[in-house]
Amino acid sequence: MPDIVAASGFKGGSADQLEALLAGIDAAALDPHDPIWLDLVVPEATASQRAAVSQHRAERMAASDPRDTKGRIAALRQALTNRGLDGLIIPRADEHQGEYVPGRAQRLFWATGFTGSAGLAIILTTKAAVFVDGRYTLQVRDQVDTSLFDIRHLTEQPATEWLTTAPTKGMRIGADGRLHTEDQIERYQAAARRAGAEIVVLDDNPIDAVWQHQPPPPLGPIRLQLLAHTGRSSADKRAEVGRDITRQGAGVAVLTQPDSLAWLLNVRGSDVPHTPLPLSFALVSASGAVEWFVDPRKLVPGVREALGNDVSIDQPDRFEAALSRLSGQKVLIDPATTGATIARRLTAAGAEVVRGADPCLLAKACKNPVELDGTRAAHIRDGAAVTRFLCWLSGHGAGLGEIAVSDQLEAFRRQGDGFRDLSFPSISGAGSNGAIVHYRASPASERILTPGELYLIDSGAQYVDGTTDITRTIAIGTPNAEQRDRFTRVLQGHIALSTARFPVGTTGSQLDVLARLPLWSVGLDYDHGTGHGVGSYLSVHEGPQRIAKVGNTVALKPGMILSNEPGYYKTGGYGIRVENLVVVREEPAPAGAERPLLGFETLTLAPIDRALIEVSLLTPAERAWVDAYHARVATVIGPLVDPDTRA
Amino acid sequence: MPDIVAASGFKGGSADQLEALLAGIDAAALDPHDPIWLDLVVPEATASQRAAVSQHRAERMAASDPRDTKGRIAALRQALTNRGLDGLIIPRADEHQGEYVPGRAQRLFWATGFTGSAGLAIILTTKAAVFVDGRYTLQVRDQVDTSLFDIRHLTEQPATEWLTTAPTKGMRIGADGRLHTEDQIERYQAAARRAGAEIVVLDDNPIDAVWQHQPPPPLGPIRLQLLAHTGRSSADKRAEVGRDITRQGAGVAVLTQPDSLAWLLNVRGSDVPHTPLPLSFALVSASGAVEWFVDPRKLVPGVREALGNDVSIDQPDRFEAALSRLSGQKVLIDPATTGATIARRLTAAGAEVVRGADPCLLAKACKNPVELDGTRAAHIRDGAAVTRFLCWLSGHGAGLGEIAVSDQLEAFRRQGDGFRDLSFPSISGAGSNGAIVHYRASPASERILTPGELYLIDSGAQYVDGTTDITRTIAIGTPNAEQRDRFTRVLQGHIALSTARFPVGTTGSQLDVLARLPLWSVGLDYDHGTGHGVGSYLSVHEGPQRIAKVGNTVALKPGMILSNEPGYYKTGGYGIRVENLVVVREEPAPAGAERPLLGFETLTLAPIDRALIEVSLLTPAERAWVDAYHARVATVIGPLVDPDTRA
Repeated sequence: MPDIVAASGFKGGSADQLEALLAGIDAAALDPHDPIWLDLVVPEATASQRAAVSQHRAERMAASDPRDTKGRIAALRQALTNRGLDGLIIPRADEHQGEYVPGRAQRLFWATGFTGSAGLAIILTTKAAVFVDGRYTLQVRDQVDTSLFDIRHLTEQPATEWLTTAPTKGMRIGADGRLHTEDQIERYQAAARRAGAEIVVLDDNPIDAVWQHQPPPPLGPIRLQLLAHTGRSSADKRAEVGRDITRQGAGVAVLTQPDSLAWLLNVRGSDVPHTPLPLSFALVSASGAVEWFVDPRKLVPGVREALGNDVSIDQPDRFEAALSRLSGQKVLIDPATTGATIARRLTAAGAEVVRGADPCLLAKACKNPVELDGTRAAHIRDGAAVTRFLCWLSGHGAGLGEIAVSDQLEAFRRQGDGFRDLSFPSISGAGSNGAIVHYRASPASERILTPGELYLIDSGAQYVDGTTDITRTIAIGTPNAEQRDRFTRVLQGHIALSTARFPVGTTGSQLDVLARLPLWSVGLDYDHGTGHGVGSYLSVHEGPQRIAKVGNTVALKPGMILSNEPGYYKTGGYGIRVENLVVVREEPAPAGAERPLLGFETLTLAPIDRALIEVSLLTPAERAWVDAYHARVATVIGPLVDPDTRA
Repeated sequence: MPDIVAASGFKGGSADQLEALLAGIDAAALDPHDPIWLDLVVPEATASQRAAVSQHRAERMAASDPRDTKGRIAALRQALTNRGLDGLIIPRADEHQGEYVPGRAQRLFWATGFTGSAGLAIILTTKAAVFVDGRYTLQVRDQVDTSLFDIRHLTEQPATEWLTTAPTKGMRIGADGRLHTEDQIERYQAAARRAGAEIVVLDDNPIDAVWQHQPPPPLGPIRLQLLAHTGRSSADKRAEVGRDITRQGAGVAVLTQPDSLAWLLNVRGSDVPHTPLPLSFALVSASGAVEWFVDPRKLVPGVREALGNDVSIDQPDRFEAALSRLSGQKVLIDPATTGATIARRLTAAGAEVVRGADPCLLAKACKNPVELDGTRAAHIRDGAAVTRFLCWLSGHGAGLGEIAVSDQLEAFRRQGDGFRDLSFPSISGAGSNGAIVHYRASPASERILTPGELYLIDSGAQYVDGTTDITRTIAIGTPNAEQRDRFTRVLQGHIALSTARFPVGTTGSQLDVLARLPLWSVGLDYDHGTGHGVGSYLSVHEGPQRIAKVGNTVALKPGMILSNEPGYYKTGGYGIRVENLVVVREEPAPAGAERPLLGFETLTLAPIDRALIEVSLLTPAERAWVDAYHARVATVIGPLVDPDTRA
């Protein structure tokens, strides 16, 4: 990820040196537990440096500057009363409904102190509640003042349930219409009405008026993504998207997804860590012309010229006025990802709202041959880094901590050509920490890699030509029979999915069971999806394709990249996951075939720990798959690593 | 199925004898091609007798009394004009949205002459169209006057498309609100509006005013289903349904599904062939009290008394008034199966409509131990009949026609204790006819069983203690290598599904792929679902569970009966299907299991043709399954059949 502040010269150093660089940042506006803000400021910092600084700052703040949510909530309640409101719903979301949220939109953190990556709060005049999922039930009690907030389970005691009883009759509860979809608002409304209360959809956020030192919108530079990497001009993509808008019965589409815009305009931004998003909005007409609402200061020289005359640039604050000008037109929005404010503004302006899929979504998901060649090349460099790491780990791993180990992998990756960033914070879990699916090591939580235990590392990188995501599970010392049995079943699921052949029209949901059956047969399972879409130097989680238990009607198409990552987690014991990225491809027709067949090409190239395979469980075909995969790794990656690693 | 007319003494005979029995029936009101009406009149007639009579009557009618749809359409158009309407939508549906439709509701047939089991017509002032699916594209041109009707494909050129262009501005097109769900009406309305036209929802059907000799509503006797077969009192079921109505936030539910009512009240009716449905409506309160709107003449003596004081009986024509009395109440309806009229009437009366699942649906699907014991016993008797048939077929089949062969199976079944009816018209297809998934043999279409060809028979029966459904594919003479390969792959899919173990919460959609993978791997597939729910002496197709490509969110639960029926169809060549019924059961936990496991018990017991199995394709586990299944058939069925069959 490109640099955005003066710290770009920083190439390592002590926590104190980093701290010095950060002196000007308002402490209260940042989350000391969450290294995300450090990514924004010092992208080159390693995970251990980030963790050390976070820890240091957290301790200092705890001693001298306890976060005063009491004062904040009092100020917020007063502001709400002044506006005739009796409450506010506070999601962890920005106006793009994305996975990473810039500091300015960290309103849930501001109001509650909670730093998790998912959650919701509702403040009423005399009560308030925070809703978090099972990952955060312990953390939330450390961070949130329970004299102010009830703590509830996000899915088992959902906000829609609390809203049916907590409000009193006649209450008017605000919701920032930019941060919720229409469907979410409707569900809150239905619940509140059962209590005789009402949800009032707002065009702004009352918190912004009382948040001192709220960070400004990010100003990450936006650069061109060259044709050598995109394989297709923006003009060509815009023409296709325009045809899709017509096909969906509209004359213009509102684009709210920054990764859709990055793909459509062949640019990459740097407004949030790990994903090169240019946070912005746009209108695209059926002719392919684009009005892009983006702060022009973000555009590095040359971008505007490269986009040409069919892409006009306007200030972000003119987006709302532009929506109001669409009177009488048929306007396409994607209800899954569009804030409720947008449809309301369109309807008020006399536009006809057409609800359908983001017209970039499917086209972006199906990578073209140039993108696929780039992704393959990125995976080879990434595979070399991971292979060097695995070799290093087998010699040096035991006795080190989780953070030092993932730092080493990051260091190997940074040496690769075209490296831009990690694609997400590494999940580096030894022993029982490996069983926490979304684990993030901190100095307080990290464990030492210990013989007899398993070590799980899920990590990835952004390269200018592709995005990677790989998980390997490694035995430290000699694994026991149970660990080998479980690992082998996970691997069998991975192989079954890798080798599946399926007709055109098949969805990821239909294939999910193949990765689970070997675990199911002995009464085990894992509580996460089997595969998510992956972008081309873009989001490591992208739609619309997905391999999961949950139904999904999107057929898999050639060029779609997905993860293949079954796992098994023994709480308090160990975690196992085997993850490669794969790409959907056409398969040659067998004799007598009547339907065009699809299958997967495996992109990820790095060894799988043979010490964890219980060979007697494998079928001959499964054994052959493991041998062929390792032969391919040796052929492709071998020449790129030193002789020791190769051996 | 119990007798309903004087013909009950009929035990076979010539077509002329049957014809004599039918002399009093109005020919124009009946469908000469569709033996359904014969089922109603002479339930004991065999398939070949029905086919012969149909053929005979069709020829007579074609010669002397061509069906005058021209006159009917003219009369209908005049009636519409008199009511201020410019058109009418005519579905093949009755007010219960069921699979079998009584003669009175055969309005599509009356208006068009089309006798298929699915379709739709729309009549406008100067044009009209009939919409049928791929099964009926030839038949519809034989039956429908193409000078009156355009012929369109039901799914590829749907009615919603035609409605956007065919009507002229300002047209008012009627739709009988009892025969369409709210969702269907909304889709027609949206389409018609694009043409500037409007759908007018009617409370009655304009056809009924001009249809001379329209059959009256059926008066099939309703009998008690004894506790020895249901395992549970109606009072107990009504209490559970009442709790579910409360849980769904309502005070009363409208039941529109005759099979729900049959289950809830422990009765079985005889209003349509093959499924013992008591066509009727009811209101159920949260207390479990029922108002049943059913013609009391249908109730055989003792039914009323057995139901007790909490079930009141009222005339069907008082149902609408009862809905109007629900002002101020929360009323549950299932939008998937409820005619739009009902919600409109409730809303007009000031009731609050709560949309949710039919409260009988899930409870009915999960059979209790008594129902399961009954089903197992029915399957043993049915298996003995099928096994005798297969033995007979191997000696006598070659050279016979499809109708004579399925008649023989029917004859064996009729000898079984507790036999009531076939559970659907047998699908008896030799050679290329086997490739037609919903084939129904007629004297004109039937083929002779010929050496070197395959013969497919899909059939089932209603016994007082259970409903069966089985498909076997048999090689006549020696099958070729391709036939053996395809059959073996279908069988492998069948075995994979039979032997799957899966955690609680898994849906049928998730498992569907297991039955398809062996075909997919060589580029083949089949275009129908893998499994449907089956009732307990009730519908052979019941929900909510299903095993299919199409997503379904209903988790499989112990006691649910499903078919397991993968297939392969070579158009113009042959058809293959292997179908057993299975029941979901809890599986013992393997050592170390963390999740409760479910699996399937196979109910159907009849040999699979070993001549069609290419043993070299099977894994050792698959071979063991085939051997164990045949050993079980021999043990259970062997003692019930003669020594020749046993051998």
